[in-house]
Amino acid sequence: MQQYLNLKFSALHSPILQPSFLNSPTHPSFPTLIFAAKMATAGKVIKCKAAVAWEPNKPLVIEEIEVAPPQANEIRIKIVATGVCHTDLYHLFEGMHKDGFPAVLGHEGAGIVESVGPGVTEFQPGDKVIPLFISQCKECRFCKSPKTNQCENGWAADNAAAMAAAESRFTCKGKKLLHFMGTSTFSQYTVVHQMAVAKIDPAAPLDKVCLLGCGVCTGYGAAVNTAKVEPGSTCAVFGMGAVGLAAVMGCKAAGAKKIIAVDINPEKFEKAKVFGATDFVNPKDHNKPISEVLSEMTNGGVDFSLECVGNVAVMRSALESSIKGWGVSVLVGWTDMYDFSARPIQLIAGRTWKGSLFGGFKSKDGVPEMVTAYLNKKVKLDEFITHNMTLDQVNDAIELMKHGKCIRTVLSVSPQ
Amino acid sequence: MQQYLNLKFSALHSPILQPSFLNSPTHPSFPTLIFAAKMATAGKVIKCKAAVAWEPNKPLVIEEIEVAPPQANEIRIKIVATGVCHTDLYHLFEGMHKDGFPAVLGHEGAGIVESVGPGVTEFQPGDKVIPLFISQCKECRFCKSPKTNQCENGWAADNAAAMAAAESRFTCKGKKLLHFMGTSTFSQYTVVHQMAVAKIDPAAPLDKVCLLGCGVCTGYGAAVNTAKVEPGSTCAVFGMGAVGLAAVMGCKAAGAKKIIAVDINPEKFEKAKVFGATDFVNPKDHNKPISEVLSEMTNGGVDFSLECVGNVAVMRSALESSIKGWGVSVLVGWTDMYDFSARPIQLIAGRTWKGSLFGGFKSKDGVPEMVTAYLNKKVKLDEFITHNMTLDQVNDAIELMKHGKCIRTVLSVSPQ
Ligand SMILES: NC(=O)c1ccc[n+]([C@@H]2O[C@H](COP(=O)([O-])OP(=O)(O)OC[C@H]3O[C@@H](n4cnc5c(N)ncnc54)[C@H](O)[C@@H]3O)[C@@H](O)[C@H]2O)c1
Ligand SMILES: NC(=O)c1ccc[n+]([C@@H]2O[C@H](COP(=O)([O-])OP(=O)(O)OC[C@H]3O[C@@H](n4cnc5c(N)ncnc54)[C@H](O)[C@@H]3O)[C@@H](O)[C@H]2O)c1
Ligand SMILES: [Zn+2]
Ligand SMILES: [Zn+2]
Ligand SMILES: [Zn+2]
Ligand SMILES: [Zn+2]
Repeated sequence: MQQYLNLKFSALHSPILQPSFLNSPTHPSFPTLIFAAKMATAGKVIKCKAAVAWEPNKPLVIEEIEVAPPQANEIRIKIVATGVCHTDLYHLFEGMHKDGFPAVLGHEGAGIVESVGPGVTEFQPGDKVIPLFISQCKECRFCKSPKTNQCENGWAADNAAAMAAAESRFTCKGKKLLHFMGTSTFSQYTVVHQMAVAKIDPAAPLDKVCLLGCGVCTGYGAAVNTAKVEPGSTCAVFGMGAVGLAAVMGCKAAGAKKIIAVDINPEKFEKAKVFGATDFVNPKDHNKPISEVLSEMTNGGVDFSLECVGNVAVMRSALESSIKGWGVSVLVGWTDMYDFSARPIQLIAGRTWKGSLFGGFKSKDGVPEMVTAYLNKKVKLDEFITHNMTLDQVNDAIELMKHGKCIRTVLSVSPQ
Repeated sequence: MQQYLNLKFSALHSPILQPSFLNSPTHPSFPTLIFAAKMATAGKVIKCKAAVAWEPNKPLVIEEIEVAPPQANEIRIKIVATGVCHTDLYHLFEGMHKDGFPAVLGHEGAGIVESVGPGVTEFQPGDKVIPLFISQCKECRFCKSPKTNQCENGWAADNAAAMAAAESRFTCKGKKLLHFMGTSTFSQYTVVHQMAVAKIDPAAPLDKVCLLGCGVCTGYGAAVNTAKVEPGSTCAVFGMGAVGLAAVMGCKAAGAKKIIAVDINPEKFEKAKVFGATDFVNPKDHNKPISEVLSEMTNGGVDFSLECVGNVAVMRSALESSIKGWGVSVLVGWTDMYDFSARPIQLIAGRTWKGSLFGGFKSKDGVPEMVTAYLNKKVKLDEFITHNMTLDQVNDAIELMKHGKCIRTVLSVSPQ
């Protein structure tokens, strides 16, 4: 019965069957009966809790916000759980983009479809989903190319089709709140464009698979898809946050025989071992450049290195730690405040410098596959989660990450 | 008869058949008769002309120098012709390496084997050869890998097996002259390690194929082997010296449909067309960054860009001119004075930064193939040569290049 209604619902909203007045969900003759069969909130503004970043360098504030119904091609999602990623901290504390506020941060969430806007046929209320900070429209030349996952219709595009920051459905105290990375998961409800949502296996535990919304796919894919780590190779991963640990897991899955974990916080090394690291280097234990240390450990340098910190000096070290001739170094860590740099000989000697966004995964295709891999125990997720909290405690979670005291804190956002 | 003697000669010098005293070519009982049948000079110190770089920033001086006979695994070559490459100028005027003098520069030469040292079986006097500034020992892990051409036994290696700078066979006025790039072709005779010499088709005109010793292989291979330019792609080549023009030729051979030549010297554009450039951009004609100009010309950036100037600002422009998602940018131009740099987003957005040394060609294998390609009219060489001079005029050739008035000057060094 529920399924029948679901199908009905989705047919009603397909562009062909639906009379045009229905495009406006607030039109008085809107068939509330059918919606009521799904979610009582459909078509209405929802009032709910969200963590609002009113200004840079300040704690988030838990507020009641209004979330307008989804418009054409949009989906309103009840966020059940969200991770906190370093990129949220970057926006809040490091990026210095004053015009990025007030906003609802968070981009590593999982939830359940509450309602869909006109034109959405792929999703139905009740679907388990993960919002995607990079879209996959499947129409643009980037989506059509097998070489890249960088859809040109995402929220960051010049003429964004999908949920540009200023296009959010959020208001609070009469003010529009900015959308963040097309996702804004630090809210009980969020509205996301359908090209930036992945439908996942209904059996997936949302408080675990939320990590596939960013950190774990990012690190794992950077090793597997971008670096293309090879069996028997030697690897170095810089930074043992969730992204770096996932990169270690990716190196191991790809068959690397030596995986060197590099971090200035030795507390991270225990975890690194869990994900497959074979060696551990703390740059603070050495009086020489870390690239020399790694070169000596590996007879000239590693085959693959991955920077998962977001520090331009570390980016240089990672490149210089890779072997001449064929070394591949991948930037995963993020900063837009500084330039990375090196001497030309580093590349002319045969190294390759790449970068990875969301691990090179085509987002809509890749995330459900990673969920399945988790359910089949091919990919670890539980081991990343060091803390569980509620959305109210988001500032505590941020403090933990800031001080390197967690890998991932998962916040429960809405009751399921 | 000559061939028989050649074989005899080479057998005599093989390590197995040769009595150890013969290892010293100056030993009184050295069988001069057999040598005489080849070259009267074999085994003796040769006095000949060379252009000596006594100190940085000064003209070269034509001097009579002494060239000792080849030692084990070495080959003495009569240089017939040599090109002048920007890397020679770099060493002389830009590199600021005071300890790199006095030296015999030149690394783009072709000649004829005069004599070979003990242990050399692959070459015989009379062979036409091209000295190689990167070696191919065929034994090291780099030579054995299909991924790279960067032999670890070359002149620049830490424990160089092949003709390190201080190991030259050159003296002048009682002083040792340094060897340059393992080749030192601005001399009528030079001694080179056998792992850094390519034997070429006897039909090859040495005053043309000398350009395959550096510039043409470098640029052509950077496009074909390193960037791996694809059919139908768009390319930009920065710098229309011989290296850049050869890159244009490589892009065309690989099937690129649009090849944009970028140079601040508009006199180069006529030549660029000869090698296949379809479009021409002079950065001085525009008030905006050249990457924006190229992006507009190509709907978002080129698929492949190659820097053939040696300027770190141009390296950055070349990267930024390539398209997000899959753009590949290759450093070919050289400097060890400055860092190249960019913002991390440039790579994270899906670009790849690579470098190319000698066009990625395994030198001993690749150069003879390129000679054959020239003889079969698959590769142009004559069109690079704008001036022909003699070794005596080397400073004029250097001045021409310094002021952008030539593509390549070929110097005739010894009569053939
Ligand atoms: N490219 C992408 O698609 C993408 C996606 C998500 C996150 N990121 C970026 O990845 C980076 C890591 O994210 P995270 O959530 O794992 O962060 P995190 O803060 O949990 O982890 C960073 C780790 O780096 C270590 N570190 C700091 N300085 C170091 C140094 N000099 N040498 C070695 N280790 C050092 C810290 O001790 C910490 O363990 C951040 O820059 C984030 O913005 C990129
Ligand atoms: N990687 C290698 O294996 C390798 C081998 C040989 C040469 N090189 C290097 O390649 C570079 C080119 O060598 P070449 O012999 O062709 O030199 P060249 O001097 O003949 O040519 C350089 C060209 O760059 C142009 N140019 C200068 N500034 C420019 C700018 N800002 N924008 C665009 N164009 C500019 C000049 O007008 C000139 O046409 C040099 O740096 C040389 O050292 C590298
Ligand atoms: Zn993230
Ligand atoms: Zn797309
Ligand atoms: Zn050269
Ligand atoms: Zn080798």
